[in-house]
Amino acid sequence: MRILLKVSYDGTAYHGWQMQPGEPETIEGRLNRCLTELTGAQTEVIGCSRTDAGVHSKGNICVFDTSSGIPPERYVPALNGILPTDIRVLDSFRVDDCFHPRHTDTRKTYCYRFYHGDICPPFERLYRHHVYGPIDTNAMQRAASAFKGEHDFAAFCAAGSQAETTVRTIYDVVIKRTAADPLSEYIDIYITGGGFLYNMVRIIAGTLLEVGRGRIGPEDIQDVIDSRDRSRTGPTLPACGLTLERIDFDEGIPAV
Amino acid sequence: MRILLKVSYDGTAYHGWQMQPGEPETIEGRLNRCLTELTGAQTEVIGCSRTDAGVHSKGNICVFDTSSGIPPERYVPALNGILPTDIRVLDSFRVDDCFHPRHTDTRKTYCYRFYHGDICPPFERLYRHHVYGPIDTNAMQRAASAFKGEHDFAAFCAAGSQAETTVRTIYDVVIKRTAADPLSEYIDIYITGGGFLYNMVRIIAGTLLEVGRGRIGPEDIQDVIDSRDRSRTGPTLPACGLTLERIDFDEGIPAV
Repeated sequence: MRILLKVSYDGTAYHGWQMQPGEPETIEGRLNRCLTELTGAQTEVIGCSRTDAGVHSKGNICVFDTSSGIPPERYVPALNGILPTDIRVLDSFRVDDCFHPRHTDTRKTYCYRFYHGDICPPFERLYRHHVYGPIDTNAMQRAASAFKGEHDFAAFCAAGSQAETTVRTIYDVVIKRTAADPLSEYIDIYITGGGFLYNMVRIIAGTLLEVGRGRIGPEDIQDVIDSRDRSRTGPTLPACGLTLERIDFDEGIPAV
Repeated sequence: MRILLKVSYDGTAYHGWQMQPGEPETIEGRLNRCLTELTGAQTEVIGCSRTDAGVHSKGNICVFDTSSGIPPERYVPALNGILPTDIRVLDSFRVDDCFHPRHTDTRKTYCYRFYHGDICPPFERLYRHHVYGPIDTNAMQRAASAFKGEHDFAAFCAAGSQAETTVRTIYDVVIKRTAADPLSEYIDIYITGGGFLYNMVRIIAGTLLEVGRGRIGPEDIQDVIDSRDRSRTGPTLPACGLTLERIDFDEGIPAV
């Protein structure tokens, strides 16, 4: 039978989701080892989102096939009992044998988190990118709306991508500000899309930060997108600020 | 001149505040090395609170003497530039040469943080102790008030303490609950006192947790304190849940 897992992780210590040659520790590799131990047979997960090294997740999705008699819902406590505490399985249930999380239409929501203030508290350093100096979040919000819709995001794709097309659809970009203390704030950029190019969210966040700093005008974003020119976008921001928040499957998940 | 530093740290990677034989990494040791590098002369801080291995701080205080010409307020950016990001200096200024942070009356506020729910999110694991099952926080709050005032806290002192007396004064104990999600909550115990015995806050938190679980009645806490019997109190809870929140000096800090 095919079992689905919803997985949250602190990506700090991992070389991303996907297993790699040379055996650095990855989320996928760790899950495979634990499932193989639990089921007593070589088991491999198929992940929905291959998050990069250092990127976090509150709800990545993967599936695996097993003939083990372990009841599907028991994988939550069983895996959490043997996984390190920086990886937690939040949910597990049986799905249709044909359900493939990467060959199914989804909406993925990522959040890029900033700590905006003079000194980044030690407790935020692993989960937020530290920025200081004046930042105009209203300009960022105006710029954000230009990303919505279907566009060729070639300008927002890191070199080395093997994507067949650079056209993607973004459904929503929302910027949230919350006071951290009287002199500092949290700035969170939520981006929901049908799929993303390599480093795309971190380059969009870097470009919006350039807008916040007045180096790119919010009215110029459409031009930057249309240019398909990577040199006109902002930098790829560090992985620590990025979290895969949730994955929604357009036609739901075919639970069995 | 004597300079005061306010220091925040994530204690996860450190063997506590105080320098130790055998050279494990400590907050004090790290500050001493950085100050010696900055000032060009052997420099040693005198800390106010010697937090234990793994305990965090949002505002520990220390002082050091130097003849360096570095302006006092410049130690904030200068130290933060060379310290690891899990230690941050929040403030620095000159104080009276006679000011000694351990020979001065203070009120220290600690917070012991729980994550109460079935699964502890990876992002909370370093800063909260994970608890699950029914917990009656109203009973905990009733029990908490029994700790207030001057008591002999011998029952709440770990073996190995070298304190001359086990009498201490607690000014306040406040329990805060906040929803984390529909099924989980944060439980934070704030304890303010004039000083604490070895592991005292972690044993009080462990005892309040036993009350929350119905194993000790809230009305029995006075008896437990009076017994001076360590076997009647709860366990010493893990260091990760404990943070030194702030230190207030009864007569203020004699800034120069």
